[in-house]
Amino acid sequence: MTLAVPLAAATETADVLVDLAVVLAAAKLGDEIFKRIGQPGLVGEILAGVIVGPSVFGLVEPGEVLEVFAELGVVFLLFWVGLETRLSEMREVGRVAGQVGVAGVLVPFAAGIGLGFAIGEPIETAILLGAALAATSAGITAATFASLGVVREAPARTVLGAAVIDDILALILVAVATGLAAEGGFDALALVFTMALAIGFVAFVALGGTELVKRRPQLLHAPRFSESPLLPAVILCLALAAIAGQIGLAAIIGAFLAGLIVAETKEQHPIEDEVAPLYAFFPPFFFAFIGIELDLGALVEGGTLLLLAAVTAVAVASKLIACRPAAAPLGRRQAWTVAVGMVPRGEVGIVVASIGITIGVLDDELFAAIVGMAVATTLAAPPVLRRLTGPS
Amino acid sequence: MTLAVPLAAATETADVLVDLAVVLAAAKLGDEIFKRIGQPGLVGEILAGVIVGPSVFGLVEPGEVLEVFAELGVVFLLFWVGLETRLSEMREVGRVAGQVGVAGVLVPFAAGIGLGFAIGEPIETAILLGAALAATSAGITAATFASLGVVREAPARTVLGAAVIDDILALILVAVATGLAAEGGFDALALVFTMALAIGFVAFVALGGTELVKRRPQLLHAPRFSESPLLPAVILCLALAAIAGQIGLAAIIGAFLAGLIVAETKEQHPIEDEVAPLYAFFPPFFFAFIGIELDLGALVEGGTLLLLAAVTAVAVASKLIACRPAAAPLGRRQAWTVAVGMVPRGEVGIVVASIGITIGVLDDELFAAIVGMAVATTLAAPPVLRRLTGPS
Repeated sequence: MTLAVPLAAATETADVLVDLAVVLAAAKLGDEIFKRIGQPGLVGEILAGVIVGPSVFGLVEPGEVLEVFAELGVVFLLFWVGLETRLSEMREVGRVAGQVGVAGVLVPFAAGIGLGFAIGEPIETAILLGAALAATSAGITAATFASLGVVREAPARTVLGAAVIDDILALILVAVATGLAAEGGFDALALVFTMALAIGFVAFVALGGTELVKRRPQLLHAPRFSESPLLPAVILCLALAAIAGQIGLAAIIGAFLAGLIVAETKEQHPIEDEVAPLYAFFPPFFFAFIGIELDLGALVEGGTLLLLAAVTAVAVASKLIACRPAAAPLGRRQAWTVAVGMVPRGEVGIVVASIGITIGVLDDELFAAIVGMAVATTLAAPPVLRRLTGPS
Repeated sequence: MTLAVPLAAATETADVLVDLAVVLAAAKLGDEIFKRIGQPGLVGEILAGVIVGPSVFGLVEPGEVLEVFAELGVVFLLFWVGLETRLSEMREVGRVAGQVGVAGVLVPFAAGIGLGFAIGEPIETAILLGAALAATSAGITAATFASLGVVREAPARTVLGAAVIDDILALILVAVATGLAAEGGFDALALVFTMALAIGFVAFVALGGTELVKRRPQLLHAPRFSESPLLPAVILCLALAAIAGQIGLAAIIGAFLAGLIVAETKEQHPIEDEVAPLYAFFPPFFFAFIGIELDLGALVEGGTLLLLAAVTAVAVASKLIACRPAAAPLGRRQAWTVAVGMVPRGEVGIVVASIGITIGVLDDELFAAIVGMAVATTLAAPPVLRRLTGPS
């Protein structure tokens, strides 16, 4: 007789509720303090995560449930940003975004490999370091632009477009890096197939989906299960995020595309008002989780601080050197905004580092340095972006 | 050197996103179909869970993340119901609710013990069966009343008040049942302490919290981190739910009390509009999860179906016999509404059964029968409630 797995003891779920309450309360307290001292709130949320996490008080540990809440945080963040964006506006910046995306992956990737060789690492480790430096966290930059109210301006759209291209290129790099470390070497045919699937998904959803909803805006309004298009839109968001994740893209690419699609029905429904509470509830978990994953103790020991400084310097310089010229057509100030917007590595750098430690090509010190770099670039960019987009 | 636990491989979170998308889409499809055939939507959501769960297609398994989403589902459900309720209205039905709560626990508890002995089980098993039959799932009844728009009427308030009393009594019963099964026997002093803590928490939060917010309604409005009182209210909800869970009460009691408190500021803020999207997003996971936990395969085998019929008959009859007279002061029709509203065992019955199998006093057949009874009573009550509260 087969039985469904019984509920975990009731107390486990009760403990998870405590974690969720602590993380949300701490994140909003950090947000509050940083807003009051005139700094970006998300920096306060990340630092709140550092404080409640293993680095300082150890009230919460990074675990599966918190990770899912963090993931939904960035999913609803990019869904919201997609809702604020029009495909036609994305097309206007398409060419510059393409340049920024390609340059912003290749230069940091090469610089990371160079750094890896310089510190005496083998080729697989150097390639993984390159992949970690090539990653861009669109979530951090998008949240900063959204809080500054400039998400529809050219720099924000350029960074978002570049992030989509980035993510497809990063998919290749990670596949190559993990393939090189695997026993059987890497499978070129499988890689080509994966790429075709990823590009096909983005193109089909972005073009076909927006066109469909533009012609039949009542689609989201048809079901009787809610008086509003909220749940159909949320289901679309989760489904596209899940599909993107399954084909090897970041889930947030799917969520962003879902937002673009739903945005086409905006004249008919005040959908933003209804998504706003989900956008308020989930993203704090994303920002706090970045801080929770950092272990300051691992960084201060040994030579890791020096390694962190080197990795961070290469990470910042390579993105700026690559993206500033690539964004030049937008004009000097906006080009700098784009380049700085590409600097945060956020959760993407941490994910790549985690893959590295799982497949055994990263040691503990380099892992800690990459996570530290991801957090440092994430904390540094928002204040600079705020200054660059402010009154000149 | 200690390192933070690294992120699980990216694909695990990607798989959880698939689960969430499948469960939410299936639940809303079930809701849609049932609404179209004129039946309560939540019944469709539970059956959708049966279909995607291990019983039929096995697309999703009950796991930690889904369980937390289910828990947040019932937490936001009771928070919403609390928001719709005033403490002063609860007081009006206080005496009847007390009678219904006490009778609705004691009679089914005794009937469960009797049934246990009748089928030849030892005393610990009989007591646990009694505890499972005594439990009431306020979530199911509250959701049904909410969807019928009668949550502020006397029967709904009576069932909610009775559920709070029920839960405190159930805490004693489960403590006694698990204490009897434990090695050292049970600790009367610890039990008294637990009870005092539980009653003190409910009284202090319900009376002190509502009074505080009534006098200083701007408290929820003060933080700068959101333009609205949504997040302060949600943090209060999660915190009180977490505390209730930690002291041995159901988390939903804390969430309901948080709703009662926030309701005192309602004139100032349209807080319901902002909680509504969270109330739309999470509860479908709660209903679907009840179906996912059921394993029909375990029920059709052997003599379990007969056992299920016996347990269900005793479960329904004992609640009706106890609660119908206890609610008599409300008048015939409303007394029946209250009695039927106390019938669903929902997630509470499943939790008790899970504790039973964990501590080893339930075998697989009785576990399957109790879970089946919980689902059967949960599915049967909403259509009857709908008829009882409809035009006479």
